[in-house]
Amino acid sequence: MAGPFADIIDLLHVVPAADEAAVAAIRERDRQLTKPPGSLGELEHLVEWLGRWQGKASPTLDNPMVAIFAGNHGVVAQGVSAYPSEVTAQMVANFTAGGAAISQICALHEINLRVFELALELPTGDITQEAAMDDRMAAATVAYGMEAVAGKPDLLAIGEMGIGNTTVAAAIFAGLFGGTGADWVGRGTGVDDAGLRRKADAVDRALARHKDALDDPLAILSRLGGREIAAMLGAIISTRQQKIPVIVDGFVATAAAAIAQAVSPAAIDHCIFGHVSAESGHRKALDHMGQRPLLDLGMRLGEGSGAALAVVMAKTALHLHKNMATFSSAGVSNKD
Amino acid sequence: MAGPFADIIDLLHVVPAADEAAVAAIRERDRQLTKPPGSLGELEHLVEWLGRWQGKASPTLDNPMVAIFAGNHGVVAQGVSAYPSEVTAQMVANFTAGGAAISQICALHEINLRVFELALELPTGDITQEAAMDDRMAAATVAYGMEAVAGKPDLLAIGEMGIGNTTVAAAIFAGLFGGTGADWVGRGTGVDDAGLRRKADAVDRALARHKDALDDPLAILSRLGGREIAAMLGAIISTRQQKIPVIVDGFVATAAAAIAQAVSPAAIDHCIFGHVSAESGHRKALDHMGQRPLLDLGMRLGEGSGAALAVVMAKTALHLHKNMATFSSAGVSNKD
Repeated sequence: MAGPFADIIDLLHVVPAADEAAVAAIRERDRQLTKPPGSLGELEHLVEWLGRWQGKASPTLDNPMVAIFAGNHGVVAQGVSAYPSEVTAQMVANFTAGGAAISQICALHEINLRVFELALELPTGDITQEAAMDDRMAAATVAYGMEAVAGKPDLLAIGEMGIGNTTVAAAIFAGLFGGTGADWVGRGTGVDDAGLRRKADAVDRALARHKDALDDPLAILSRLGGREIAAMLGAIISTRQQKIPVIVDGFVATAAAAIAQAVSPAAIDHCIFGHVSAESGHRKALDHMGQRPLLDLGMRLGEGSGAALAVVMAKTALHLHKNMATFSSAGVSNKD
Repeated sequence: MAGPFADIIDLLHVVPAADEAAVAAIRERDRQLTKPPGSLGELEHLVEWLGRWQGKASPTLDNPMVAIFAGNHGVVAQGVSAYPSEVTAQMVANFTAGGAAISQICALHEINLRVFELALELPTGDITQEAAMDDRMAAATVAYGMEAVAGKPDLLAIGEMGIGNTTVAAAIFAGLFGGTGADWVGRGTGVDDAGLRRKADAVDRALARHKDALDDPLAILSRLGGREIAAMLGAIISTRQQKIPVIVDGFVATAAAAIAQAVSPAAIDHCIFGHVSAESGHRKALDHMGQRPLLDLGMRLGEGSGAALAVVMAKTALHLHKNMATFSSAGVSNKD
């Protein structure tokens, strides 16, 4: 496919290799630490994963970052959210002021937080009526997301804010994996039963309107997707090129990763999924993608909050790897 | 039952009520925080749980503590561990010196760590041949555990160290819940297939030898249990009386909670289970106990390491509850 997405498609396909030599060095050190081999489970895997994708035998977490991408959505006109669209901008202000959950997770655990607003005053098109964006706008927003994370964090957690975006994400998953609106929508910020039916109906109408585009993941993005989803796709693309491991947050962030994976499975090899959301379609989407989430805490907030808790686990894991004693330094007898 | 356990049985049965007024106050504040109600999932439940069992509408985590109880076990003579018994004392030294995983989790996240040695030079009896302890010694060790946590932490995580103690814990679970050694043993610190068969056989022989005692949870403790398990039972008892919430660690620590629950279900109402261990019998034990673990990270280290990660989640949850903005303070529109 030529056109606005040509460069994006190239970048999704041409990706650096994993650094398995770094992983081997990490495993060699791990075997010397005062614990039975394998006994730290996922904490050990997190350190290997950092080294594999940073390309460092001694991985770093000096500059972990949570990036929140915020967008607004024309589909809110269909009554799909419990909150008005103005909340998106209000919450962006709250992130920066330090009042949001993600602000306080980052403050407590010394994680950088960056918020990227995407033309909040210009919601995307109502996907039940028209395309969310044209291809040129979608490609430009992907490119914006690629630039946004250029501050070179050594770990990026990707999250979002956008009233109405669980409906958009549900439509994307239905477009990629099949099924109807009812298969993919959930209560989002807390819609009632009538709201849930409106969400399913809006997704079904969007799928019918855009049915000619559902065989192409990037067309799905421009027809159904929001700006924050396009930007998160961009962040996933550029981190893959720049050797920055990524922790994907919940239902909406996963939609961006699903588009990348649908174009080129290797494009998300550097991603892990920080948690499984209580939003009902998230586990199903992860299953379709062959992904196992790190945490399962019944959260459904977005903002990168689940991914940020996974960052805390990664920080802890790396701290142990770097600071634990070895059998020889501690004078502990090793396995017989 | 009179005798050495009489006071312990009384304390297990006569327990303070939950503070549901504190929980109601916590929920009232939670409803004002800038997030959809319920969207922080288990983080919200953790704050409610702290308040319910501390008896405080504004819970504290000024003095969280991990307590590790260490003991040695005569059953290691049956070839049930991949490591020699001397490792128990060596790891106790490593905990204190700061070289162990738990030391570094606690250092990074500002959690107090206390280690309690239980006569490491005097292993308990080999349970395939004799009782682990007599009832008087078991009761005295429970009493020691009750005193050990008297420093009044506002949250206690309970862990252990003891070469051979996954065999002992498997025997206790089989005694309490039925089944054979093969149903409950796992690879512990990493025994091979032959070691796993020796563990199952040792449990089966212990169950046969002590079959007259298996209808009484405290007799199971003295016949099959280790000193660290008795002391953890004591810690569970005294924290229940002192309004200190408890996070139980993995397979072995859960055996102490299972004994308490078997005597009096309300005795462990103040406990949550920090994680499910990769040790194969742990999930089965939690299912028997009707408990759902907070984390599932494939860990099987002991030392309180899984419980300590749950403490980190509780610290994060309380930090959010105390520091997030409210809808009115942040000027965010609430649900329509």
